[in-house]
Order: sequence, then structure tokens, then C-alpha cells
Amino acid sequence: SAVDTEKQRILWGWRLTKTPQIRSTRIVAKSRLFEIEEVELHFANGHQAHYERLSGNAGGVLVVAVTEDGMILLVREYAVGVERYELGFVKGRVEIGESPQFAAAREMQEEIGFDAGELRLLATVSLTPAYSSYRTFIFLAMGLYESSLEGDEPEELETVPWALSNLERLRRRNDFTDARCLLATYLAHQALAHEDG
Amino acid sequence: SAVDTEKQRILWGWRLTKTPQIRSTRIVAKSRLFEIEEVELHFANGHQAHYERLSGNAGGVLVVAVTEDGMILLVREYAVGVERYELGFVKGRVEIGESPQFAAAREMQEEIGFDAGELRLLATVSLTPAYSSYRTFIFLAMGLYESSLEGDEPEELETVPWALSNLERLRRRNDFTDARCLLATYLAHQALAHEDG
Repeated sequence: SAVDTEKQRILWGWRLTKTPQIRSTRIVAKSRLFEIEEVELHFANGHQAHYERLSGNAGGVLVVAVTEDGMILLVREYAVGVERYELGFVKGRVEIGESPQFAAAREMQEEIGFDAGELRLLATVSLTPAYSSYRTFIFLAMGLYESSLEGDEPEELETVPWALSNLERLRRRNDFTDARCLLATYLAHQALAHEDG
Repeated sequence: SAVDTEKQRILWGWRLTKTPQIRSTRIVAKSRLFEIEEVELHFANGHQAHYERLSGNAGGVLVVAVTEDGMILLVREYAVGVERYELGFVKGRVEIGESPQFAAAREMQEEIGFDAGELRLLATVSLTPAYSSYRTFIFLAMGLYESSLEGDEPEELETVPWALSNLERLRRRNDFTDARCLLATYLAHQALAHEDG
């Protein structure tokens, strides 16, 4: 269509543009967990702008732990951002000096009491790329075996097994809303279907 | 299995737990865009803890705009959080007084120069429910027709049409990393497959 041709022309045009230049950055607000940075940007067209972004942070892991009898192990945890208990996958920060794989195995042992014979990276995703460099490494964990580590949670986490055959119902729940968790259900389904195929 | 029975027992047990109580909140850091709130939480087991979360913000929209010839319209925009151009869907904030639907239609007109005859809500997702109440409303837009509004972007956005039949290649790109965008490709595919079926 005419629209496609026009858009295609633009698609190729972008390669000629120049990436904006960061002229300066400075911390404008800081708390125990968060640090907000102001960035002075100069665009190729001469425009200048000041942006804000969350700085720091090595990233996080999210682990879809699959049992041999076709269950995924969810965690129910209070989430103060949304002020309710949320269901989700094993999740946590990558601590300084850890690899994402190491963090994934540690978080599994802390949150559900299992380690995995096989940890496979399914995707590395961003959250709000305009405002943060934070990345989440999404893993599939198989060959589970019991192994526990003490976590630092204020109340015991509850493990909730969920049938892989019933993902659609999980996706429709009002307490399973984290975009990364929803995405991970599709990624895990795809990876496991490929495995079976 | 023994594991499942044990976990199932825990699954039912959670219903007896009490939701943590928020005893107080206070703003501990603030910038032009961000506000960080400290929350004092009392858990049912007697534990007390101070958490931090990003406060404020009505939420955002993300729109998968589908043309009649099976293309989705992506936007290429500089993302200062990750310091590169990212491909993604039409995205933006819900301004005060706007409905998510209104914001979706406005952002489409500002970013790709189209409005939609049909806007269908596919999902409402959170990002980091432990740290933020921010929600994103994911829409499917069909019945596109040309209609433009002036945006406030510092450089012109580039619209990139992408074949719906080639989503897998899009998902593997290094500049298509936003978890919400990746999720939206699966949601849109599902919604459109259902439509055809």
C-alpha cells in the first residue's frame, strides 16, 4: 500500500540519523533504594532537552521453575507498590559480583527451596527503556531438586504450583499482572513446546 | 507428587494470612518526574519493615496498531535509559483527566499519524508491583485512518511497519526489549488469531 511504501522509506531513512549526545549527567534526587539522574541531551537536529532516569542497579532475574510433572512454581508475595499479594515467578536482584545465573539459582533456593539441574536464559528484557537501564534476565529452570537457602523476606513466601496446561487462566488473574511474568508464560510455553516437538 | 501435595497445602493456607498494614507513608526524595515514598509496613507475623516505592502517576498506554494488510506500526525513538534507539509500540502517559482509551487515540495521532475505528483493551499490566503502582493499558487498534496531532518529541519519530507474520524475528531483535512490547506481540497475535478463527 501507499502507506507501507512511505513508511518503508522512513525505515531506511533512520539509518542516516545520528544518536543524541549526552552532554552531562547529575544526580537530582536520591533515597535508600533509588537514585534519579538528570541527563542533558543534544539531538542531531539541534534540539536540547533535559531527561530524568533511574540510575544504578545491576538488574534482576525472573525464573520459571518447571517440575517434571508439568507444574510451574509460583510465589505469592505482598507487593507494596500495588498494595496486594501478587502471584509471580521467583524474582530478585542480581547482587554485585553475581552472574545472572548465580542470582537465579540463589533466588530459587531462597524463595521456593529448589535448585535446578538446567537453567536456560529465555530473554533479557528492559522495563521502561526511556527511564531506566534496568534489565531482567528471564530463565527457564528444569531438573529441580530440593535445596534451600535462608532468604530475607519479612514473612514466609508461599509457593503455588500451577499446571502448565492452564496458563490461560493464570494470565487472566487480577493478581498476576507483572508484564515480565505474563511475558515469561509465553516464553516458557514456547521453549517447552519446542522441546517436546 | 509429594511436592505438589505439600505445595497445595500451602496454597490453601495463604487464605488465612492477613494483608500487611501500611502504618505511614512519607516522601523521601523528589525530582521533576519522580517521587519516592517510604512506607512503614506491619506484617501479620509481627514483623515491621520500611519499603520504598515510586509514587504518583496515573499510568500509561501501549497501542498495537494493525493495518488492513497485516502490518503492525512500530515507532523508533531514542530511549535515554538504555542510551540507544529502541523499536516499540505507540506508548505514552495517561494525562490527568484522560481515559486510557482517549490517551491511546491521542498518542497514536501524535506518534504515527493514525487514529483507530476500533480500540480494544487486551490487558492491564504492572511493571514492578513491589516498587510501583504504575499500570500500562495495552490496546489493539484496528480500522486505522489518517489523523495527526502535534506531539512534543524533540526529534521526529520514525514509524516502522512490521509484518505480523514475522513477529518471531522482531522478538529476537536487540532493540526491541521492553517487556510490555514483547508481551504485546503475544497478546495481539492471540487476539487476531481468535478473530480469524
